[in-house]
Amino acid sequence: MSANGGKTALVISAHAADFVWRAGGAIALHAEKGYEVTVACLSFGERGESARLWKEGKTLEEVKAIRRAEAEAAAEALGVHELVSFDLGDYPLRLSDEDRFRLVDLIRKVQPAFMLSHSQYDPYNTDHMYTTEVVLECRMVAQAWGHNPGEKVLGAPQLYLFEPHQTEQMGWKPDTFLDITPVWEKKRAAMECMQGQVHLWDYYTRVAQQRANHFKRNSGGQAGGRDCKYAEAFQSVFPRTVDEL
Amino acid sequence: MSANGGKTALVISAHAADFVWRAGGAIALHAEKGYEVTVACLSFGERGESARLWKEGKTLEEVKAIRRAEAEAAAEALGVHELVSFDLGDYPLRLSDEDRFRLVDLIRKVQPAFMLSHSQYDPYNTDHMYTTEVVLECRMVAQAWGHNPGEKVLGAPQLYLFEPHQTEQMGWKPDTFLDITPVWEKKRAAMECMQGQVHLWDYYTRVAQQRANHFKRNSGGQAGGRDCKYAEAFQSVFPRTVDEL
Amino acid sequence: MSANGGKTALVISAHAADFVWRAGGAIALHAEKGYEVTVACLSFGERGESARLWKEGKTLEEVKAIRRAEAEAAAEALGVHELVSFDLGDYPLRLSDEDRFRLVDLIRKVQPAFMLSHSQYDPYNTDHMYTTEVVLECRMVAQAWGHNPGEKVLGAPQLYLFEPHQTEQMGWKPDTFLDITPVWEKKRAAMECMQGQVHLWDYYTRVAQQRANHFKRNSGGQAGGRDCKYAEAFQSVFPRTVDEL
Amino acid sequence: MSANGGKTALVISAHAADFVWRAGGAIALHAEKGYEVTVACLSFGERGESARLWKEGKTLEEVKAIRRAEAEAAAEALGVHELVSFDLGDYPLRLSDEDRFRLVDLIRKVQPAFMLSHSQYDPYNTDHMYTTEVVLECRMVAQAWGHNPGEKVLGAPQLYLFEPHQTEQMGWKPDTFLDITPVWEKKRAAMECMQGQVHLWDYYTRVAQQRANHFKRNSGGQAGGRDCKYAEAFQSVFPRTVDEL
Amino acid sequence: MSANGGKTALVISAHAADFVWRAGGAIALHAEKGYEVTVACLSFGERGESARLWKEGKTLEEVKAIRRAEAEAAAEALGVHELVSFDLGDYPLRLSDEDRFRLVDLIRKVQPAFMLSHSQYDPYNTDHMYTTEVVLECRMVAQAWGHNPGEKVLGAPQLYLFEPHQTEQMGWKPDTFLDITPVWEKKRAAMECMQGQVHLWDYYTRVAQQRANHFKRNSGGQAGGRDCKYAEAFQSVFPRTVDEL
Amino acid sequence: MSANGGKTALVISAHAADFVWRAGGAIALHAEKGYEVTVACLSFGERGESARLWKEGKTLEEVKAIRRAEAEAAAEALGVHELVSFDLGDYPLRLSDEDRFRLVDLIRKVQPAFMLSHSQYDPYNTDHMYTTEVVLECRMVAQAWGHNPGEKVLGAPQLYLFEPHQTEQMGWKPDTFLDITPVWEKKRAAMECMQGQVHLWDYYTRVAQQRANHFKRNSGGQAGGRDCKYAEAFQSVFPRTVDEL
Repeated sequence: MSANGGKTALVISAHAADFVWRAGGAIALHAEKGYEVTVACLSFGERGESARLWKEGKTLEEVKAIRRAEAEAAAEALGVHELVSFDLGDYPLRLSDEDRFRLVDLIRKVQPAFMLSHSQYDPYNTDHMYTTEVVLECRMVAQAWGHNPGEKVLGAPQLYLFEPHQTEQMGWKPDTFLDITPVWEKKRAAMECMQGQVHLWDYYTRVAQQRANHFKRNSGGQAGGRDCKYAEAFQSVFPRTVDEL
Repeated sequence: MSANGGKTALVISAHAADFVWRAGGAIALHAEKGYEVTVACLSFGERGESARLWKEGKTLEEVKAIRRAEAEAAAEALGVHELVSFDLGDYPLRLSDEDRFRLVDLIRKVQPAFMLSHSQYDPYNTDHMYTTEVVLECRMVAQAWGHNPGEKVLGAPQLYLFEPHQTEQMGWKPDTFLDITPVWEKKRAAMECMQGQVHLWDYYTRVAQQRANHFKRNSGGQAGGRDCKYAEAFQSVFPRTVDEL
Repeated sequence: MSANGGKTALVISAHAADFVWRAGGAIALHAEKGYEVTVACLSFGERGESARLWKEGKTLEEVKAIRRAEAEAAAEALGVHELVSFDLGDYPLRLSDEDRFRLVDLIRKVQPAFMLSHSQYDPYNTDHMYTTEVVLECRMVAQAWGHNPGEKVLGAPQLYLFEPHQTEQMGWKPDTFLDITPVWEKKRAAMECMQGQVHLWDYYTRVAQQRANHFKRNSGGQAGGRDCKYAEAFQSVFPRTVDEL
Repeated sequence: MSANGGKTALVISAHAADFVWRAGGAIALHAEKGYEVTVACLSFGERGESARLWKEGKTLEEVKAIRRAEAEAAAEALGVHELVSFDLGDYPLRLSDEDRFRLVDLIRKVQPAFMLSHSQYDPYNTDHMYTTEVVLECRMVAQAWGHNPGEKVLGAPQLYLFEPHQTEQMGWKPDTFLDITPVWEKKRAAMECMQGQVHLWDYYTRVAQQRANHFKRNSGGQAGGRDCKYAEAFQSVFPRTVDEL
Repeated sequence: MSANGGKTALVISAHAADFVWRAGGAIALHAEKGYEVTVACLSFGERGESARLWKEGKTLEEVKAIRRAEAEAAAEALGVHELVSFDLGDYPLRLSDEDRFRLVDLIRKVQPAFMLSHSQYDPYNTDHMYTTEVVLECRMVAQAWGHNPGEKVLGAPQLYLFEPHQTEQMGWKPDTFLDITPVWEKKRAAMECMQGQVHLWDYYTRVAQQRANHFKRNSGGQAGGRDCKYAEAFQSVFPRTVDEL
Repeated sequence: MSANGGKTALVISAHAADFVWRAGGAIALHAEKGYEVTVACLSFGERGESARLWKEGKTLEEVKAIRRAEAEAAAEALGVHELVSFDLGDYPLRLSDEDRFRLVDLIRKVQPAFMLSHSQYDPYNTDHMYTTEVVLECRMVAQAWGHNPGEKVLGAPQLYLFEPHQTEQMGWKPDTFLDITPVWEKKRAAMECMQGQVHLWDYYTRVAQQRANHFKRNSGGQAGGRDCKYAEAFQSVFPRTVDEL
């Protein structure tokens, strides 16, 4: 819950652009609904996900500055409440216990209604699965009454795993499809902030279109599901608690 | 959707008592919410789940009559809209294509918002997994425009798998916990209609208490989840389509 | 091996259109390479996959005739050697032992270098998984020296499982990506023969574009994989035997 | 339990030779311990597993007679109490409900302390996985008080799955290694009764030697496990109930 | 094996109370059988599992002292041979290589016939799965002839994984049910030593009652399994080596 | 690709002898085909896999020297291009980030067409699974344009997992069988260089014979697969990209 009593969400992204491709729609949609959505980028993806910039001969600092600027512009386009850059380096990403406690602090500060992060397996990109491993640990620490006693402890927010590249190789199985049609233009605008990965704009547009097809199928089948033009898919780590099936 | 425009649900139970132990709370709760809940019992569990009656020397017809009466009383206690007994025999249960089309007819007549049935694997009780195999096939047929053209086709209702005995042996993993505290007395009353399985009354009371603990844990953790005294757990076969995470 | 000593392949499709969406590229590509590709359609998908025709009020025979014509046109466009329509009905599909032996006869006649069929799990469409179950059984029978002794027995062709809809829900994991760029126009043309499922033309075009991205990623990563515009993905059931890794 | 109060076991084999290769050691060992071991062969493997005989031009009846004789000789070598040939045909194997009730009758007659059958998945040989599916159903029926009331119902014998060919492809994972060194000569002798599959004698001798290595490793590691020259491996379907870990 | 030649066992618990809830019955039962059971608590669970004490305003040292005293009292009640407190901190638990070698030393000193620890997956409590990861590594090191050469190396003790909370979420599947009825009063007494977790006393009493039901079911089914009032369940990591099935 | 433009491969072995038992045939075969095969041994297996030497009272330095000499002799026998000993210690094996970057340097230097390493799970030997975890991370870093910019980045070589001991316990499933008959004498000679593990010579000879049987089965079944006397089996981590199925 936010300082002013509104709902909040927290996205934890290994590299600066991940939150855009994989959860941009969810961010923009919930921002429109009044959620304060915080995004934590653990690195800028400077070494591993900025091939074009390196080919152009940029230095490390230049690459990071450019990636930071792109992430900020994308966050702006999506209506992100706060973008927190941990700047921990990538390929490989490493979090010391001190770094993890910073993340715990952020989780407790945000008190998210739900969290978003990467798939639990990714043999192509070990930073991704490492991030989720860290997030699960930090979620647990944030729940502990004995960690920084006196602070407000965390409840039990769902952790949604956003869509990885090559889903089947990651053992990722979505159980929740979110209609992002109302905010599609924002997601597309945010993607277009990522100038170094132009080839991914259309790729993730198609992902959203395919997921919209799945949304329709699962909301009504051949009887005519609910119309949907763009969607995002997520896998839940924890079960839901409900009052109606 | 029911004839008068209200919501509906359909429970498909291999043997007469399964719907009581495994989904009695969900039935009573949704009945209270105004759903018309239909229960289909494919058999009375006369051969395989009526040990006490056989030990007493009852005949097959007597066993079936007693089981039918118990199921009807339990359905009454739970507020079931209609109890449909297919009377197909058990141990083993078999459905011919004609039997399956009867089930398709029922599914189409009910037009359920959601369906409930057994786990997909059960090496102890093959009738259970067979039932879910049949239910998935019948759900598909009910969706086909070319099956009995002119009838209203089925949409895409969720199929929830209710809790089997010895959950871990069945590979069943719940993703949805339902608070049944408000209707607990009805579930207990329905269970007490099953006079041949007295030893299960307390067993399934404890199941509900354990699931309530899980409900609390998943709704808030150590920060204090929502209070809950009795719950039921379900596994979803299909993904959800949502407008908010 | 074909009568004239060339290579052969066999595609087994539950419904008339499946081979087009899921394996049209593989068919056209291997046809261009000189393979004789036989397609077996176990049904026309007349009841379950022809919603538009039923809404237009067509009769069963009309629906089947239209679907048959579409399948033949698509097969023509892809360069299929022979299209064999088993006409067994769908939703649900059923094969008697006699039907299965017809399929065994076909397998033996074709003596395929590889076979293609559906995923092994599909809770949305039980005809699909049933087909693969049947295919595995028939492959085994075709290998038996004691089945119709004197006939040439089958070797050990790979069985590739083609891409299902909503791959992650089916537990399908591709291990083989095939570049179908050279024959893309043929696949698109074949898809456009399916007049009742216009909404799927673009859907499967996007599938091919996404799989092309995966082809590039797996053939070279950020170092610049091989260019590819359209691809199809497959899962192998059996291991490969090789002389070089 | 046997008529004279001794322990009993039941092996259910799809084809006549399976019990020899996969469980010959377990059979001979338990026979030596005083168990009455019954073996049920559902078919002779006449069509699918008698390639050499068909190549020699034998007729179906000749093949069956030869296979029966081999199975009987092998059973004799192993000390089998009773060999029951169901003679149901193979490739594919089919059991009607009547056939299944014959198997239930046998299970009840034997009242086995444990049962042995095939792996639950086998894409190479669907008769194998079909057999285990049938065995689980028949075990359930045999436990039902309402099936042939008055007969002694079955308890809850373990079902061990014996070692399939190409274990990893079958998803079979052994949890129990049995030292068969004391009866190795009997197993070898039984294998040598199978004149049509000479190439398998050494294959399964090596299997036994490899499993002996695993037996040693699991009984003591580098500290020096218990010596063992030949072993067989099994996967349990059901959990064990014990008084000591 | 203990110094005086008796049998030994080793329980490795992430937090001070885990051994009580999850393996208290196994400990008390084997102690009664003459085993010397050593319990290693890697932390006191001071930060993460002592919510009540923190709410009361206790300091870290006070929390640890109270938790230590509770663990010692519980160990006493169960007949534990030696309780070794590693005092490594929790939420998150961390073991340096030096800490791990202390654990290796303990394993070698105890020379356990079997070991007990946590499930291999736990998204709620990463300390738990981390502990088992460490235990497997330390078991391996303890087996190495080159680690502290001259010491007695470890054999190949089974590692049993005790029951986690919300078993299905952890992917934990029990294969061994232990009847703890004879020592139930001791387990209950030990649980009642944990004053900060009163709500768990009845929870784990119900767990024991449900597992007793499973014990009966697996020891005899409807034929009347062995009576059992309280049980504990375990999953084995390694296969068993036996002389009789 | 090698300096002179030929093909290359890289084997990464946790302990000095692993590459011999598990991939000796693949190494010798590809060396004969003109590949430059580099082998990286992360440790000598001095503590954990040299029991005989420790029993003889050797010192750590003596053990390492002997193991190094054996590995070099085996590499020579197999035609290894370069054997790189990282000498990082074993039981447990640990790689600092600096060590990992050395491995990245090696990967980039070799530019392998394919890589070989251990299975992804191994509860008996955590060094094995740790190695593959490290290899996946280093493969990713070697692909990053921002890691040591200016160096040639890695493409997307397949990572094959070679055969572990007790395959089923490791969850390892081979998808590729390699015929090593032409180089069998070299593999046997290399194995005989490992004087401390004489008991494994015949064990791995039998492994090769069993895998040859599987090679034949998968290359042609009962129709007569391709003859093969010795084979090795591998599991692929990544999908293949092909132009023909």
